[in-house]
Amino acid sequence: MSEVEQFDVIVLGAGPAGEVCAGRLGEAGLSVALVEQELIGGECSFYACMPSKGLLRPAQALAEARRVPGAAQAATGELDVAAALARRDEIIHDLDDSAQLPWVEDHGIALVRGHGSLHGERRLRVGERLLAARRAIVLAPGSAAAMPPIDGLREARPWTNREATTAKSIPASLLVLGGGVVAVELAQAYASLGARVTIVEALDRLISREEPPASELVTQSLRHGGVEVLLGVEATAVEREPGADGDGEVTLTLADGRSLSAEQLLVAVGRRARTDSLGLDSLGVEGGGYVEVDDTMRVPGHDWLYVIGDTNGRALLTHMGKYQARLAADHILGRAVSLRSDGPLSPRVIFTEPQVAAVGHTLASARSAGLSVRAVDQSIDAVAGASFVGHGAPGMARIVIDEDRDVLVGATFAGVEVADWLHAATIAVIGEVPLERLAHAVPCFPTRSEVWLRLLESALD
Amino acid sequence: MSEVEQFDVIVLGAGPAGEVCAGRLGEAGLSVALVEQELIGGECSFYACMPSKGLLRPAQALAEARRVPGAAQAATGELDVAAALARRDEIIHDLDDSAQLPWVEDHGIALVRGHGSLHGERRLRVGERLLAARRAIVLAPGSAAAMPPIDGLREARPWTNREATTAKSIPASLLVLGGGVVAVELAQAYASLGARVTIVEALDRLISREEPPASELVTQSLRHGGVEVLLGVEATAVEREPGADGDGEVTLTLADGRSLSAEQLLVAVGRRARTDSLGLDSLGVEGGGYVEVDDTMRVPGHDWLYVIGDTNGRALLTHMGKYQARLAADHILGRAVSLRSDGPLSPRVIFTEPQVAAVGHTLASARSAGLSVRAVDQSIDAVAGASFVGHGAPGMARIVIDEDRDVLVGATFAGVEVADWLHAATIAVIGEVPLERLAHAVPCFPTRSEVWLRLLESALD
Repeated sequence: MSEVEQFDVIVLGAGPAGEVCAGRLGEAGLSVALVEQELIGGECSFYACMPSKGLLRPAQALAEARRVPGAAQAATGELDVAAALARRDEIIHDLDDSAQLPWVEDHGIALVRGHGSLHGERRLRVGERLLAARRAIVLAPGSAAAMPPIDGLREARPWTNREATTAKSIPASLLVLGGGVVAVELAQAYASLGARVTIVEALDRLISREEPPASELVTQSLRHGGVEVLLGVEATAVEREPGADGDGEVTLTLADGRSLSAEQLLVAVGRRARTDSLGLDSLGVEGGGYVEVDDTMRVPGHDWLYVIGDTNGRALLTHMGKYQARLAADHILGRAVSLRSDGPLSPRVIFTEPQVAAVGHTLASARSAGLSVRAVDQSIDAVAGASFVGHGAPGMARIVIDEDRDVLVGATFAGVEVADWLHAATIAVIGEVPLERLAHAVPCFPTRSEVWLRLLESALD
Repeated sequence: MSEVEQFDVIVLGAGPAGEVCAGRLGEAGLSVALVEQELIGGECSFYACMPSKGLLRPAQALAEARRVPGAAQAATGELDVAAALARRDEIIHDLDDSAQLPWVEDHGIALVRGHGSLHGERRLRVGERLLAARRAIVLAPGSAAAMPPIDGLREARPWTNREATTAKSIPASLLVLGGGVVAVELAQAYASLGARVTIVEALDRLISREEPPASELVTQSLRHGGVEVLLGVEATAVEREPGADGDGEVTLTLADGRSLSAEQLLVAVGRRARTDSLGLDSLGVEGGGYVEVDDTMRVPGHDWLYVIGDTNGRALLTHMGKYQARLAADHILGRAVSLRSDGPLSPRVIFTEPQVAAVGHTLASARSAGLSVRAVDQSIDAVAGASFVGHGAPGMARIVIDEDRDVLVGATFAGVEVADWLHAATIAVIGEVPLERLAHAVPCFPTRSEVWLRLLESALD
């Protein structure tokens, strides 16, 4: 065993959260080690957000051109699957993280490749090396696809988000187990790229944490795009036929006795924290699951140990991991911090067509939280701006108003290209801008943002 | 002369401002007359915002599809000009306003067709009819293209926005006099539809009220699209050749001696209020120009006379006219009102490619106003979301920060499809959300709204 290498801070996991944290600490002049056993850039950059958006975008850009007379006549060709996959490869840099290295170097960060595990207080072992942190260790190992306990599932070698976002060809048919964000995004992407897709979801609606009308629009759109959507159905067993090359068809048996077969099966029923071999048990912290942290991102009882990103289970979203990373870094740097965005109320976007963009409460979650709220709904397609963008496609907007404080506590938009609308709602919610004042923020004509006008007129009437 | 017809309120002009005002008053139970000599829906719906966006959109939707590998290969055809013009006709309902009539009727509004002019206090004459208002008269006659005093211009029968937005065919060549919003939008639209376009602007940059980097991007894009842009050049004379059908080529003589010829000439050098035959002089109010109003939209000294929309010259934007309309209606209804968005600080969008969306101050206007400000700039194309939307196209974002109050007083975005981004900035500016709080409004990954993250990190560093 070589001598102990000293750093101010050790960050384990070089996904977006780890990178942001390490970068911020490095910029502040601290000596930082960044430990990564896979790719610098993490799940998000190579196996999740980025490639999935890359796979979804071609069909969406084409659909929009086809909604616009004049452009439509120029866009009558077929979506080029090979070109779409090649662009996806470009987006994920062919799974090569060397483009990230200059950034690491520029920030004065010591990159340590390998699997890290805690080795007593403020110490991390990476293979033969032993690292020690003067100030803090920040864990950001991320999450992986959860594998539900279904007979034969593991043996059938199903796809997770990793295989689905990096596949070199499109299977003729794909079963998708699950109905959350990963499931609906990848189901739609694969359908648009030519696969015959079936979603099997145990709950009675897709993206069940979001407003029901948003679920409804996404479900309609999936079905319209040829995806078979089975709701309220559980899978009980999986079997893969051997096949010629060792990978034959996968058959899913459902609780109602039906069975479905396809070339591939994607499991997208949630995530699990990658904490099983981090040595957390040695500290008396339970490993294997999400690690509970306080509002400074520290593990209670271990004031030197921070857990950020998916691994703390608070909000499994890249941007929230980065937000937590800034907060943890600031706390390590001795700055005052406050956590103002957290948990299921965090802003979130589902990049299907229609996109679903939401922040804060849904009507149901607000009521469950005991708030005195009312919802105001408007359709997006009724505003003048919808003559130009998303023309003819349905869309919905809902705001949830806290009647005691007269501020927004939630907003949901579903429609063509509404992802970037969300930030207006996020600022309104986080800024706690009074409704009456919000009514003076005039949306421009003829943008689709005029839906705000209708929402606020209904709200203030 | 028939007997006097009594109403609570008479609204003159059924453009967006007049409609909103009449509608709000009608909904509140007042008896309202709405007087219009042309089309219900006004300049905006038939000759300005709506058709110009209709003409711009096909090229933009197609350009975006062509930026996305996979979609690009399906969008190799030519923009269909006839289909684009047919869609434009659909948007302007073939200049038939009958689709608006049910709305008027539903709101219990008495529609009076014809030219109205003031006839003493609270009275308006429309042809043979004499209308009297118990509470108020609201003038919303709008604006028309200004015609600069250039030799031969009027005689050459140039196009204004009206002809350019409703043309049944695309001229081979088009000269555009002016470099403001109307000029750049229509220049780009016509270039995209096949015309050889030349812009002649007396100032040294286009859209000169906006941030210089935004002007620069629009100018580059116009030039890239084949538009010749001449800056700092004045036109001194215009002549139209008789031609076979009475409409030959138009020749523009420039101050530097050059001359330019084209099939059509579009004059887009500003607007004038349509107040010349409203009988304002009879009240001692100067007609022929913009009518000054106070912050309740009333003409000083005439507490029954409101002027809203373009005609008061405060902010020549449809959405601001509608905002003023709501305010005037509320004031007439005896409600408390406050004007929180006004003048050149109003939110505004230019629908060129790149779109330019701005609210509040530019850096220059803030300095001129004596504010202690600094600007923070970021490019849009550097954020992860730009891998998917507007990929490869340049874009800029600038926020202007009031250093005394630590709030945003201005923001400008220029880029592909940024129109709907603006509302976030508008809420931040109007809501006076402190910068530090704004930093907790987390933009979603990977949306292009993450430019906010970079802007605020730079601002707060």
